[in-house]
Amino acid sequence: MTSARVLLKDELDIVIPTIRNLDFLEMWRPFFQPYHLIIVQDGDPSKTIKVPDGFDYELYNRNDINRILGPKASCISFKDSACRCFGYMVSKKKYIYTIDDDCFVATDPSGAKINALAQHIQNLLCPSTPYFFNTLYEPYREGADFVRGYPFSLREGVPTAVSHGLWLNIPDYDAPTQLVKPLERNTRYVDAIMTIPKGTLFPMCGMNLAFDRHLIGPAMYFGLMGDGQPIGRYDDMWAGWCCKVICDHLGLGIKTGLPYIYHSKASNPFVNLRKEYKGIFWQEDIIPFFQNVVLSKEATTVQKCYVELAKLVKDKLSKVDPYFDKLAEAMVTWIEAWDDLNPPAKSNANGKA
Amino acid sequence: MTSARVLLKDELDIVIPTIRNLDFLEMWRPFFQPYHLIIVQDGDPSKTIKVPDGFDYELYNRNDINRILGPKASCISFKDSACRCFGYMVSKKKYIYTIDDDCFVATDPSGAKINALAQHIQNLLCPSTPYFFNTLYEPYREGADFVRGYPFSLREGVPTAVSHGLWLNIPDYDAPTQLVKPLERNTRYVDAIMTIPKGTLFPMCGMNLAFDRHLIGPAMYFGLMGDGQPIGRYDDMWAGWCCKVICDHLGLGIKTGLPYIYHSKASNPFVNLRKEYKGIFWQEDIIPFFQNVVLSKEATTVQKCYVELAKLVKDKLSKVDPYFDKLAEAMVTWIEAWDDLNPPAKSNANGKA
Repeated sequence: MTSARVLLKDELDIVIPTIRNLDFLEMWRPFFQPYHLIIVQDGDPSKTIKVPDGFDYELYNRNDINRILGPKASCISFKDSACRCFGYMVSKKKYIYTIDDDCFVATDPSGAKINALAQHIQNLLCPSTPYFFNTLYEPYREGADFVRGYPFSLREGVPTAVSHGLWLNIPDYDAPTQLVKPLERNTRYVDAIMTIPKGTLFPMCGMNLAFDRHLIGPAMYFGLMGDGQPIGRYDDMWAGWCCKVICDHLGLGIKTGLPYIYHSKASNPFVNLRKEYKGIFWQEDIIPFFQNVVLSKEATTVQKCYVELAKLVKDKLSKVDPYFDKLAEAMVTWIEAWDDLNPPAKSNANGKA
Repeated sequence: MTSARVLLKDELDIVIPTIRNLDFLEMWRPFFQPYHLIIVQDGDPSKTIKVPDGFDYELYNRNDINRILGPKASCISFKDSACRCFGYMVSKKKYIYTIDDDCFVATDPSGAKINALAQHIQNLLCPSTPYFFNTLYEPYREGADFVRGYPFSLREGVPTAVSHGLWLNIPDYDAPTQLVKPLERNTRYVDAIMTIPKGTLFPMCGMNLAFDRHLIGPAMYFGLMGDGQPIGRYDDMWAGWCCKVICDHLGLGIKTGLPYIYHSKASNPFVNLRKEYKGIFWQEDIIPFFQNVVLSKEATTVQKCYVELAKLVKDKLSKVDPYFDKLAEAMVTWIEAWDDLNPPAKSNANGKA
């Protein structure tokens, strides 16, 4: 059992896309105030976001992004919360926690408030076990272990790159499911954390997500969504599929399960349908594409993996829609911008810095 | 949501290795009495097992097994609960539930008694989703669904062949872990059911297990354990690895999670260590073997898959120990015996009967 420790301010940043709701920060104050916030404003730069006293933060609007990245700012989405990935790039910390402004503090079945951030940190500090399934879930938790039949040689695990948390109340459904089940609420608190096995893809939601940016940061690109793009609400999915194949290739782990947040508000299913409908088609080609991705032995860093992946996207997915040509180019631009802001001497994508 | 239905007596058999404890059947009476029991006695055939009134059962001891199978009885373990698989072979039902006699009725967090059998049936009657991970676990449960980003073409799922239930109280640990953590108890009720993804192996425990014998029965062979064999406590593991690669090949699903039973008694860790220690070594070769198994296109039935697998075991594992030569031969004998008792006209391993 790897015991939890508290991360210091110089180890973790909290990245939040536009905060529309000041209750959000008040509610999280006891948990977030010790850390630095990076707020990335997704829409009109002339609007101001008021952050309550006591929080240490930096705020970037579109003008800032354009100024900092110059022509490379084209890879950052506009008028879409996908712009949050700019925050991953400007952070200098090892760990990132990102959360949406409609996600509140949840309570566990005993009624206690859940410190989501602490659980994410614990998930990231414990190894992952992607090569064999443990039927009692997270083997490193208090009161659990590897069960009979689990190979001893696999019990050390591998470093954890991503911790994917879940949502009580409003589940993260697509527009068709929202339309069919408008009243469905997630009330099931599943007391589990698990590693997503190697070779298995999953739908990564960006609402309540933490990661080790030294291990996987350059792959956490949220794509081209929102203003001027034919698709939305696939930003986190795209990042998840890219991260998963790269983690599998590099021998890193992704966990899902605890912690829960309370997702307060369903987004408009009609608006969502408009954003999603091309993604719903395209996905039928995208998933087989990712299931069959093979990265080369030369791809030994996240950046190299990601640039290879961009090339594969161009080769295999641009026949689905010209959008993927543009996306593949943006993926390369993203890596160039990442490396500009994170010069190799100071950061190391293998986490060996 | 596939709603649960009650299985009829002519649809399911309960298979139990030697019952040493009559409280066991009394405790399960409300749930088991509607069904037929097949008891397979693992030790001295002269000892009699007293079954309480009101249960409909058949009991097989070693003499019965020898009489029914003749020379092919060599494939059934003696003085080991692995002999239970003889019960799978003589059953004529579509579904099997198998449980150990130290497994009692568990209670859920509300204090209600858990009808493990009903939950297994529900698991088996709902499809499985091995090709993509659903972060809210079983998508077919009440109050749950597929989340955003789950491909629509994969939402029908595939038939479920196996339902693997878990254990509260004494966890299913190997001898080394038992020795190191003698006091550890599993008190965490995880309210989840999930499909084990395609391509991922898991440690299948035979304590609390249900399966569709029309879909996967001939692969549910518990190997050669106990009297005269160099290994024990790998019977269910072996069956699980064989079943998993065959389910993956044939497009069938395996679920794990609910239902829980209450595992009352830890087996002796010193005895367990003697039974297990060769398995602990061998497993380091067995797991990579199963991870790399490729079955041919011609292997279109469980029997054909299993005979192919036996050949691969002989080719690749007999260099680990001559035991695997013997095991490979027993695997072929098992299939012959299965087909003798389940002639193709009456049963159909593809479940299309």
